[in-house]
Amino acid sequence: MGRTPTVEDVAALAGVSRQTVSNVLNTPDIVRPATRERVLHAIDELGYRRHAAARRLRLRRSSAIGIRLDPYVGGISGVILDRFVHAITERASERGMRMLVYAARTPEDEVVRLGELWEASEIDAAIITGTVRDDSRVGMLDRRGLPFVSFGRPWGADDIADPTHLWVDVDGAAGTAAATRHALGFGSRIAFLGWPEGSGTGDDRERGWSRTMQQAGIAGERLVAEEGVLAARAVVESALAAGFDADALVCVSDSLAVGALLALNAAGRRIAVIGFDNTPTAEALGFSSVEQRPEDVATGVLQLLMGATGDVVVPRRAEAGSAHVLVQPELRVR
Amino acid sequence: MGRTPTVEDVAALAGVSRQTVSNVLNTPDIVRPATRERVLHAIDELGYRRHAAARRLRLRRSSAIGIRLDPYVGGISGVILDRFVHAITERASERGMRMLVYAARTPEDEVVRLGELWEASEIDAAIITGTVRDDSRVGMLDRRGLPFVSFGRPWGADDIADPTHLWVDVDGAAGTAAATRHALGFGSRIAFLGWPEGSGTGDDRERGWSRTMQQAGIAGERLVAEEGVLAARAVVESALAAGFDADALVCVSDSLAVGALLALNAAGRRIAVIGFDNTPTAEALGFSSVEQRPEDVATGVLQLLMGATGDVVVPRRAEAGSAHVLVQPELRVR
Repeated sequence: MGRTPTVEDVAALAGVSRQTVSNVLNTPDIVRPATRERVLHAIDELGYRRHAAARRLRLRRSSAIGIRLDPYVGGISGVILDRFVHAITERASERGMRMLVYAARTPEDEVVRLGELWEASEIDAAIITGTVRDDSRVGMLDRRGLPFVSFGRPWGADDIADPTHLWVDVDGAAGTAAATRHALGFGSRIAFLGWPEGSGTGDDRERGWSRTMQQAGIAGERLVAEEGVLAARAVVESALAAGFDADALVCVSDSLAVGALLALNAAGRRIAVIGFDNTPTAEALGFSSVEQRPEDVATGVLQLLMGATGDVVVPRRAEAGSAHVLVQPELRVR
Repeated sequence: MGRTPTVEDVAALAGVSRQTVSNVLNTPDIVRPATRERVLHAIDELGYRRHAAARRLRLRRSSAIGIRLDPYVGGISGVILDRFVHAITERASERGMRMLVYAARTPEDEVVRLGELWEASEIDAAIITGTVRDDSRVGMLDRRGLPFVSFGRPWGADDIADPTHLWVDVDGAAGTAAATRHALGFGSRIAFLGWPEGSGTGDDRERGWSRTMQQAGIAGERLVAEEGVLAARAVVESALAAGFDADALVCVSDSLAVGALLALNAAGRRIAVIGFDNTPTAEALGFSSVEQRPEDVATGVLQLLMGATGDVVVPRRAEAGSAHVLVQPELRVR
């Protein structure tokens, strides 16, 4: 048939009325099973255009997963989230799912937008990212009954031993531990350049360095800078002026690593610098960095939402042993 | 009402049968206008949950725009496309639209995926990116009747004077012309580091340099490297070894600029380097670069699809004077 099939074509092929076709699509419970099968068969055979959307509506299944995309704010580390979005789009497509992306200004706004999408059956589940301590979104989504997985632990709400929520995270401490072990090959004075205390992610990464140093029986110096190349550069310049020295500097992010490198180059000093995030900038400048494997995070998120191989979202309660995926990062040595 | 309203609630409030409500949602043409209005009013009043999805299905309007996200392949320039995706998500959200992202391996696969989304009324329009000369997607989408705008000219298919298709692009030649004018402040020997001939984008950017040099009555040296930091580094190292010298080097991309900088630093040479893309790496390393303004590209795309302020996609034919938006890039001097 050359033209797009219509509901009349479906009705004619199935030998039923137009209203019956409409009922099958919209209120299938009121149609006799045998008739329903005949109509669905005709729909499939003709490739009737409204089939997919109608079925989604009927089943309240959208085959879409919602995720917020923040406005671009610059900086070199945002690329991790973008890599995750690319990867989850790829993996979800392989399972017949699409990603619905939307913008939101605040956590409250994000929950409102997700609620609208959920109420209108436009998403089957949500992914939240950028979790913070006592993340307000967690409780709000719980109350709405929207299945969700977070990329990042809902720090404070639960952690590895407490399977209240589904989450996937990267084992930051394991990453900086690997970086510190590698750095100990350059000497024993391994410093850490971290963020101010209080961020779950930053504290976790610092733990990997401090534990590894403890195990080696060595004390190391700790520098602190806000996220950003310029802030890190200023901190390391001041430290160098005040006599700071080390064999290697493990950094909490590639941004801080770039700032440290610029300060060291300007001072004509050679100290090995190791970053975290393995951004394109680390690759371009050729310094070692911890690779977060956002592709493995994407696989983990879909596993929690859809099982290992399924093609639909299966809402479930978090259970010990299967509610969390902790991705092991990998040091890329350059 | 504390619970979610049902179709029965709508029927009761409108004083009609459940079947009539279903007809209004799914085959509104067979319902008398006055009855239809009464039911729609009841639906609005109760905030009936299936309203949004049902209306979309009925109107064949999804309030979503499809865009492909490629797998992450590394490199520092992919961030431009990600910035565009962030910006279009933001701008589209302001107009009540969402972005539906999907993965595809090939141009053919991309068109098939878009066709499926379009047939199922899951998108109202598509955005294609990464256009190449004689882009096969253009003709395929034309035949399907799917409204689309490309970010990037469909090089070869049409150009500025030929309004066959809707597109938004960045005026690459204007960007490198600005970079070259700036570079002429450092001296008269302004070289260009470009991609091999034949890419629409690369040739366009080179034109901005060559024309500006012509206007200044100066000949400049041209170096060529494939996209990538290492390739550029090798090319500039060879050139320096062969006696290359210049007052400034205008580069077709930030990747090539970083490669050039690494080669120059290693050789202890100081030549001003200007990049293109204004990536976070350019910001971090502090070299000047041409900013593409992907946010303006996003605004332009929505203007072509939805008009200046509308909240629905309005399919239209390309017309001279209104089919293209050429965004003016801006040199960020550092």
